[in-house]
Amino acid sequence: MGDFNAIAQQFTEFYYNTFDQDRKNLAALYRDNSMLTFETSAIQGVAGIIEKLTSLPFKTVAHKVSTLDAQPSNESGGILVMVTGALLVDEEQRPMNYTQVFQLLPDGSGSYFVFNDAFRLIY
Amino acid sequence: MGDFNAIAQQFTEFYYNTFDQDRKNLAALYRDNSMLTFETSAIQGVAGIIEKLTSLPFKTVAHKVSTLDAQPSNESGGILVMVTGALLVDEEQRPMNYTQVFQLLPDGSGSYFVFNDAFRLIY
Repeated sequence: MGDFNAIAQQFTEFYYNTFDQDRKNLAALYRDNSMLTFETSAIQGVAGIIEKLTSLPFKTVAHKVSTLDAQPSNESGGILVMVTGALLVDEEQRPMNYTQVFQLLPDGSGSYFVFNDAFRLIY
Repeated sequence: MGDFNAIAQQFTEFYYNTFDQDRKNLAALYRDNSMLTFETSAIQGVAGIIEKLTSLPFKTVAHKVSTLDAQPSNESGGILVMVTGALLVDEEQRPMNYTQVFQLLPDGSGSYFVFNDAFRLIY
């Protein structure tokens, strides 16, 4: 049960570091069959996903992960990742809680891509 | 994109109604390869999962779903379900926020079972 946990942890660190530094670079993690549900918006495909992420109405953001759970999602190396955390945008003083779930699938060359992605703020 | 949303909604209503009425009856939704991560506990198999759920330290619980998002999780009819909500246990006055993710897989007879289940309270 070790490997998928380690991969989930590496992925999550890389994902939020990239998001917080320059979120257009997340394009490398999605494919044309990837799905993103961001709050009430449902989007498919890397172009639409990156357009959504880069058009979010804040300039700077910092994610802080509180919990990270992972499970195998199929018999072909897929990994389900559930994150809870807090994020701080721009000049805001109060972090907002969020939850995000990913399904990672092997990309056939030793790495993974994001097949499912769903994000919600927690009020 | 309609069918998986409807199934996710039906499942979620059934799941929390059953949980709140008599949670041992959730056994029908799990299989021996099902996985549950409940807070920091990771459990596999229907027997262990039901033992965990029925031993939680409250007598009555009421779940209230705030958001429900669903996506297809594979090409064989799997469905990823992400829930955020609040729950109230026993005599508590203050609801606790939670998030829960399920992967539902077709059981081969027209219904679904829970393959992945991860639950976290949000503090």
